[in-house]
Amino acid sequence: MSNKPRISKGTRDFLPADVKKRTYIFDVMRRVFIKYGYEPIETPSFELTSTLMGKYGDEGDRLIFRILNSGEKVKKADISALENNELSKFSNSLSEKALRYDLTVPFARFVAQHQNELSFPFKRYQIQPVWRSDRPQHGRYQEFTQCDIDVVGSSSLLYELECIQIFDEVLTDLKLPGFAIKINNRKILSGIAEKSGAEAFLVTIVTAIDKLDKIGTDGVLKELNDKEVPKAAIDKLEPLLSFKGSNDEKVELISVFLKDSKIGMDGVEELKTVLTQVERLGLENGRLEFDITLARGLNYYTGAIFEVSADHVKMGSICGGGRYDDLTAQFGLKDVSGIGISFGADRIYDVLNELNLFPDSTSSSISFLILNFGGEDTISSLDLAKSIRAKGHDCEIYPNNVKIQKQFKYADARNAKFVIMIGEDERASNSITIKDMQQGTQQKILRTSFLSSL
Amino acid sequence: MSNKPRISKGTRDFLPADVKKRTYIFDVMRRVFIKYGYEPIETPSFELTSTLMGKYGDEGDRLIFRILNSGEKVKKADISALENNELSKFSNSLSEKALRYDLTVPFARFVAQHQNELSFPFKRYQIQPVWRSDRPQHGRYQEFTQCDIDVVGSSSLLYELECIQIFDEVLTDLKLPGFAIKINNRKILSGIAEKSGAEAFLVTIVTAIDKLDKIGTDGVLKELNDKEVPKAAIDKLEPLLSFKGSNDEKVELISVFLKDSKIGMDGVEELKTVLTQVERLGLENGRLEFDITLARGLNYYTGAIFEVSADHVKMGSICGGGRYDDLTAQFGLKDVSGIGISFGADRIYDVLNELNLFPDSTSSSISFLILNFGGEDTISSLDLAKSIRAKGHDCEIYPNNVKIQKQFKYADARNAKFVIMIGEDERASNSITIKDMQQGTQQKILRTSFLSSL
Repeated sequence: MSNKPRISKGTRDFLPADVKKRTYIFDVMRRVFIKYGYEPIETPSFELTSTLMGKYGDEGDRLIFRILNSGEKVKKADISALENNELSKFSNSLSEKALRYDLTVPFARFVAQHQNELSFPFKRYQIQPVWRSDRPQHGRYQEFTQCDIDVVGSSSLLYELECIQIFDEVLTDLKLPGFAIKINNRKILSGIAEKSGAEAFLVTIVTAIDKLDKIGTDGVLKELNDKEVPKAAIDKLEPLLSFKGSNDEKVELISVFLKDSKIGMDGVEELKTVLTQVERLGLENGRLEFDITLARGLNYYTGAIFEVSADHVKMGSICGGGRYDDLTAQFGLKDVSGIGISFGADRIYDVLNELNLFPDSTSSSISFLILNFGGEDTISSLDLAKSIRAKGHDCEIYPNNVKIQKQFKYADARNAKFVIMIGEDERASNSITIKDMQQGTQQKILRTSFLSSL
Repeated sequence: MSNKPRISKGTRDFLPADVKKRTYIFDVMRRVFIKYGYEPIETPSFELTSTLMGKYGDEGDRLIFRILNSGEKVKKADISALENNELSKFSNSLSEKALRYDLTVPFARFVAQHQNELSFPFKRYQIQPVWRSDRPQHGRYQEFTQCDIDVVGSSSLLYELECIQIFDEVLTDLKLPGFAIKINNRKILSGIAEKSGAEAFLVTIVTAIDKLDKIGTDGVLKELNDKEVPKAAIDKLEPLLSFKGSNDEKVELISVFLKDSKIGMDGVEELKTVLTQVERLGLENGRLEFDITLARGLNYYTGAIFEVSADHVKMGSICGGGRYDDLTAQFGLKDVSGIGISFGADRIYDVLNELNLFPDSTSSSISFLILNFGGEDTISSLDLAKSIRAKGHDCEIYPNNVKIQKQFKYADARNAKFVIMIGEDERASNSITIKDMQQGTQQKILRTSFLSSL
């Protein structure tokens, strides 16, 4: 039974160098999350279908991977649904479980289910894979890792501040030279729709504004017009879309615009509080930018919204998030405000690669490789390896006494830092010969001196 | 749309304390694997069904979770197969992908697929979840994490030694006070079957011997008899099953028994080489025990076989493994010998829990919690939090200025080590009040002194 090795399309193998780079990113995030008091949780890879379905809209439902019932259970297949082309009903009859589509809905289920075991506000981080049956294409995968933090059980604006600090600290620790943390507030968007006299068109307006980056001001205005947003409203919106200026100037502009809108001015107040605190505390490599046109998943968010993009690379946003209300209500736990942000690990990986920011330690390598000369030499080498490892270093012995060239070839392939040789001479003099593979230099030193130098 | 929160049976949520304990175990393993020159890889959660099916026997095939084809593809359902009760054929028509059942088959696929990118011998570690549609029961889950190391591309016995050293080092680092590393060799088992004149009954004999722990010598002898193994063969086997003695005594006994068996004596020579080397190098907390009756997955292994069990607890084996030949042949890469071992993370977790061996650092906790008194006090607290984090410590601020009792209650729930208070007094004197929550003591100190003490 031979079989050409193939991977399922849209998925990836990670070779050692990939895993090391990804682990580096996750470790930096984890360290920062912990510093801010977030605790790790994990949820199962699959949930009951009923937990996931209907939470992500029709498009989302379509992209959820479902697990086929096992064994005899497939006998319950609803053939008449298939005959009537009710494919979703047919699939339901064959499947009770589904792979998670994101970390947010399982987290809401988790909080509702374990509410009596948790202390609120509950701050958690979660780094786990999610699955979407997207058509595979460049840079889009069916399996990818999400890195989320959320706080639930408090509406304090200190968490808005904290999200911004965490964006700044994670990306600064990853050595990103510069990045924009864009902030807006859903209440400001509501106020804008209200004040432009087109409240009924809120979703249309936000959807159009969301495309500003791609289609420009003219494109947005055209779309608003096409969607029959009243001319008077469009005229009022136009100056907001094209306005350039500092955060303070933008706040002033929008304050005037939203003057009589209760919800709008609530949003402005929240924004000002956050902007003031960030200014006082300062950021490292990040810039906080109020972006009136940042829209992002309107149906979901209720307060602050965030998006982060890196300087010097052409790439979409690498992080995002915002405040939401009552995500857990769908699982029976009501009146719980929350805020969450998410780091796009794959995009961050691409940015670090493109800007050459991965540290040397992530390149595939072994510190000490001991060559194998057989017999007593090997036994002596095993002893040395044990001592090197006891000092906390990584070390391996070539498995067989083969030609030295072949052993050095392996040392090169493994990117070994040092190659150690122990032959009869070395054994007789209690020494080792050690070659620095980067320098190309070689010396014979006492075994004890070598070990005490580690 | 309210929904009682439920998890799919056979799966688990991991709360912060669980994740920390599990991470502790994985980190210890990872550190040791790296010290021995193993490199990380990751493979996708799902593979093409054709990659997995037929590799684990009928029972295994039955336990593989299959992913339902998406969208229109379910129209290809083979209804006539369902009508003819050919359930497997019906399932095949609905599914092209399946969740991985273990890490070994995907690893073999990986090695064959990436053979030109790897240097051999290729040493990898892999810590990822696997899924089996087992009937959920106590201590058996549908999703669990496997922790494997394998070397492929060498038949050197140094790797047998290395596996034993790694068992010893991982479990010693996890503070297990004592454990038995049992070793046998598949060639010895073949020799035993050959010499007892029952070669044709090899599988029957090994299957029966494998149950020795559970059913005792009498039970094994009865099973052999029931399965019609010749009386003469059973009589020859009996002394081997009941023999107690040191490794040397057992080696002597088996050497006499296998005297004229080529394959049997090959196994004895391999075993002796490994025993000798381990004796010279020494182990920490582990004991290496030659166990003639250790059988373990005969069809798979071709040389050494291992199993590890912990002292002081009633639990099955916590680790296992062995040498295999040509695992990659099924994916077109021939003549590649390998050896691999696996750590049972869930069982190890249970052992550490039962013996109370988890370090204090894994208990859910935050180092510094700063209370919130509002206004300028809060701003001053935010400054301090920033400084504490800059020193690498974890710290959080209570989100609102509520009653101090409520804030202390949260500090207790979070298991905070220190609570810090900054009010008007403290601000005026550039100091903080800090309470040691374990000792119950409280002091007021200069802010600068506190920070320089971190």
